[in-house]
Amino acid sequence: MDQHTTHGTVATGFEAVREEFHAVAAAEGGDYAAQLTIYHQGKQVVDLWTGPEISGDSLTGVYSCTKGAAYLVAALLVQQGALELDQQVSYYWPEFGAAGKQHLTVRELLAHRAGVVGAVAGFTLDELADDRVLAARMAAQTPYWRPGTAFGYHALVAGALIGEVVFRATGRSIQQHFEEHIRAPYGIDFYLGLPPEQEPRFLTTQPMRPTPEQLAQVAANPVTPPALLGIAFNQKRPDAPALDTLPNHPVIRAKAPASVGGVASARGLARMYAAATTGTDGLPPLLTPDTVAAFGQIQSVGLNLVTGGHSAYGVGFTAVADLYPVLNPGSFGHPGADGSQSFADPHSGLAYGYTRRRYAFPGGAAAENTRLVRAAADAANATVPASAAT
Amino acid sequence: MDQHTTHGTVATGFEAVREEFHAVAAAEGGDYAAQLTIYHQGKQVVDLWTGPEISGDSLTGVYSCTKGAAYLVAALLVQQGALELDQQVSYYWPEFGAAGKQHLTVRELLAHRAGVVGAVAGFTLDELADDRVLAARMAAQTPYWRPGTAFGYHALVAGALIGEVVFRATGRSIQQHFEEHIRAPYGIDFYLGLPPEQEPRFLTTQPMRPTPEQLAQVAANPVTPPALLGIAFNQKRPDAPALDTLPNHPVIRAKAPASVGGVASARGLARMYAAATTGTDGLPPLLTPDTVAAFGQIQSVGLNLVTGGHSAYGVGFTAVADLYPVLNPGSFGHPGADGSQSFADPHSGLAYGYTRRRYAFPGGAAAENTRLVRAAADAANATVPASAAT
Amino acid sequence: MDQHTTHGTVATGFEAVREEFHAVAAAEGGDYAAQLTIYHQGKQVVDLWTGPEISGDSLTGVYSCTKGAAYLVAALLVQQGALELDQQVSYYWPEFGAAGKQHLTVRELLAHRAGVVGAVAGFTLDELADDRVLAARMAAQTPYWRPGTAFGYHALVAGALIGEVVFRATGRSIQQHFEEHIRAPYGIDFYLGLPPEQEPRFLTTQPMRPTPEQLAQVAANPVTPPALLGIAFNQKRPDAPALDTLPNHPVIRAKAPASVGGVASARGLARMYAAATTGTDGLPPLLTPDTVAAFGQIQSVGLNLVTGGHSAYGVGFTAVADLYPVLNPGSFGHPGADGSQSFADPHSGLAYGYTRRRYAFPGGAAAENTRLVRAAADAANATVPASAAT
Repeated sequence: MDQHTTHGTVATGFEAVREEFHAVAAAEGGDYAAQLTIYHQGKQVVDLWTGPEISGDSLTGVYSCTKGAAYLVAALLVQQGALELDQQVSYYWPEFGAAGKQHLTVRELLAHRAGVVGAVAGFTLDELADDRVLAARMAAQTPYWRPGTAFGYHALVAGALIGEVVFRATGRSIQQHFEEHIRAPYGIDFYLGLPPEQEPRFLTTQPMRPTPEQLAQVAANPVTPPALLGIAFNQKRPDAPALDTLPNHPVIRAKAPASVGGVASARGLARMYAAATTGTDGLPPLLTPDTVAAFGQIQSVGLNLVTGGHSAYGVGFTAVADLYPVLNPGSFGHPGADGSQSFADPHSGLAYGYTRRRYAFPGGAAAENTRLVRAAADAANATVPASAAT
Repeated sequence: MDQHTTHGTVATGFEAVREEFHAVAAAEGGDYAAQLTIYHQGKQVVDLWTGPEISGDSLTGVYSCTKGAAYLVAALLVQQGALELDQQVSYYWPEFGAAGKQHLTVRELLAHRAGVVGAVAGFTLDELADDRVLAARMAAQTPYWRPGTAFGYHALVAGALIGEVVFRATGRSIQQHFEEHIRAPYGIDFYLGLPPEQEPRFLTTQPMRPTPEQLAQVAANPVTPPALLGIAFNQKRPDAPALDTLPNHPVIRAKAPASVGGVASARGLARMYAAATTGTDGLPPLLTPDTVAAFGQIQSVGLNLVTGGHSAYGVGFTAVADLYPVLNPGSFGHPGADGSQSFADPHSGLAYGYTRRRYAFPGGAAAENTRLVRAAADAANATVPASAAT
Repeated sequence: MDQHTTHGTVATGFEAVREEFHAVAAAEGGDYAAQLTIYHQGKQVVDLWTGPEISGDSLTGVYSCTKGAAYLVAALLVQQGALELDQQVSYYWPEFGAAGKQHLTVRELLAHRAGVVGAVAGFTLDELADDRVLAARMAAQTPYWRPGTAFGYHALVAGALIGEVVFRATGRSIQQHFEEHIRAPYGIDFYLGLPPEQEPRFLTTQPMRPTPEQLAQVAANPVTPPALLGIAFNQKRPDAPALDTLPNHPVIRAKAPASVGGVASARGLARMYAAATTGTDGLPPLLTPDTVAAFGQIQSVGLNLVTGGHSAYGVGFTAVADLYPVLNPGSFGHPGADGSQSFADPHSGLAYGYTRRRYAFPGGAAAENTRLVRAAADAANATVPASAAT
């Protein structure tokens, strides 16, 4: 008996995505539970889920997919003229100008170039939950690299840093902007601050459970992570909360730190990117083509000083065509450490959201996204585009 | 019977180059046809060819070796003061200032830092043949990366971009400048616009023909190319002309787009670099030592966002000592996608030209150049230099 | 019989370092001779030596560990306001402004971004010994890359370059500053200019002696070094002195070029970094926390154009946490080509010095440092820090 029944619907032309999703579930086996939603040209064309306890309505912590929501707020504010990308951060937030950071621009901050990725002393759970505390800590710090000249993933503080800029520039938090200008008007199932009445839909994140094969592979290829990795992921503090169950703490869901505290369904992830780029259900896109082009443009690419690997970032957003070359350049989004993934491909009109309940070993966009994204892009490319592309 | 007789001559001291060329032909086998010409200190010291139909007088499409001719025109104009490397491109060409490119300098444009490498919609054959059309298309475009901050090979448009700058600054095309100031006065067998009377000497490019071993190797090591590669090489357009036979279209040979449309013999390639750096046959070098140093200086090095590999560019020219460390730093030139190669090593006084008729799998400077360049450099180093080197 | 008796002392809590040092000696075998000294929070906690002829008092040439002494002088002068990191080099040293280097800053010079790493013509022994001659040669030269935009190890000239800046700014050489303000007042066994009365303590460097296994490994993985490597390490000149015995020339020890000419014991190396960061024996630290943070901050990271590998530099100093991620970010120091290593970890209060008499194949910080540093860091982390860390 195949316990991994695939539930949900796909539109004509996207049947292969359903098959791929089903194949992923069969390969993962066990208690694998996941959601996949895709929009194309503003219409929901894929809406699938599989596994025990989960439904299309379920919510999970989406880790750094949260950053995509935060960056979307920043993009809207830039579009409205409330924020300037090439202005210095210290113009909005004078305290940030300490310790050699006075000339760093908002653009560089968003592109992970500030160099204040964390601290050896680390953060408690309550500190991790509070963007303003994180921001104040980082403002005082000397950057690990010369600000602006290199980049590294500001895993747990990126949202707090842009959040503080937004707060200083507008008097309102990123979480407030997101709720009022994005989530509520577009009916997006993605919360930066989960309301108590939505808690019953929340499914806890299940901690990593590497297979013997995965452990053997790691043992066979031991890698010494960069010194900055442990700092950026708060691993230096003995009493730090475990990352692979972070959303399970009510304080994280309630306060929703803009780096990692969002809660969403795959429907919410995909709908947010559709709202941003194509609009949906008669509502216009949140972003103009110029804003889309500006935020999807690669700003930082190459050696990521925190991960020690290769990365490509746009203005905050991950330049996801670097991960999935089947996408068009200019695609932008953000993965989550638990394995979730979310993005838009503005050229093809694709918007993608994927969640899984079990934190994927060893962390970061889960491998199955490569298969699912390919199937989605192939289906989108096979359909007639709504407008002539350039 | 060895069908690969090596024809031509080598000067005393360069006998080993002949042996290496012969060994390459024996290893390639089949219908391999190639030319190799080398100058040393302004004198032709190697002039060889092998294979069916070909002679030392034959001409082939030399693909991106064409860019070397275009960059030589730019170097001459900079030397004459008609063009300034650190001036903004938009100073000469206002339309290029669109979409965030207003501050890009001519130096950065030449060093593949503009970020406008092509378009998803791609180009028709006629568009590819027309530098002014390509330039206008790219001028309007938003760069794929923040201009100036990263680099990637502008494979099919680099020549058009610097060509438009040259046209705007001087009122004449790169092709005209090349003909009048370089090709004609130095008697160089390298045409940017093949005259009808030279057509009988032209040999068509033969398409790639990978061996079973090559295909097996690719299959064993599958690589997903970057999203930008398909765009830069015009692979997104279903009706795009095949690259491995591009020079076989008369419109390409006639209009000679400055990125890929040149037609030359190995004699022409080598003589151009000798004319540039040492002078030849009593004619002085086209470039002063200062210009040579300026254009051979590395400007862009490391991750090439288009190829996904490592590259090193000077001011436009490829910094070929990065490919062949047996050369001296400051060596500059350009390979062709078909496998051709051409460069000068100003320190040793070497100028090198190599063509082959069969487009080498999988594209780019053919592997045999490594052996041939080493033999040439060893021979040059073993001779007494004409002047004390620094 | 174990001929590799480990001599010397370790403080309580650092016993594992002694065991590791002993294990290294057993593994190296033969005539291995080495010294290891470590300070923690200003107190000497490890002082060990092993091997024939050597004692804790022995001195060896420490190659590029010398650069650490030179950079410490620069840091002191910056701290005192006698030198400004973001001032142009040509402000202090007008001749350096030639050939496109006029805008290079002192910071960039220290971070190996100048691009004048040597010359094809190379240097004689007497030239290598004379910082002012090296400086004048490099001042006239066109950089191999666009200055400031990339970096590569200025192996044999870095000390001469900052030395000339120091001389022009203060009227005194780096060697004089080091003796008067660092070595003498803190009683550091590290000489930039070995006094004749110390010569009896000097042990000659023994040349490389690769094992058959090492040679087989190199043969199995042939690597073509970058063109700039041979230039930076003076390998293009046929009569160049061998690097693996360079300190054995009296002129090198006497004139002590600031790149490679220092002579020290491990005690001297470790004590210098303790003096710099924690102070020792009642004397205050030479550097303020701000200076420590400024000089340990990563300035150049990624592709090293000279070695062709990955490097991370602070302001001159090597960012050693990049080599040993068990250290805290902000750790700074410098290895020597003979295998020696020296650094401070300001966060943990560790200062480390290691010397070995036999030049380690193939050159650079010897592999055994990885084991020794880990043991030292683990021991330091297990002790209670003297002050709360951030």
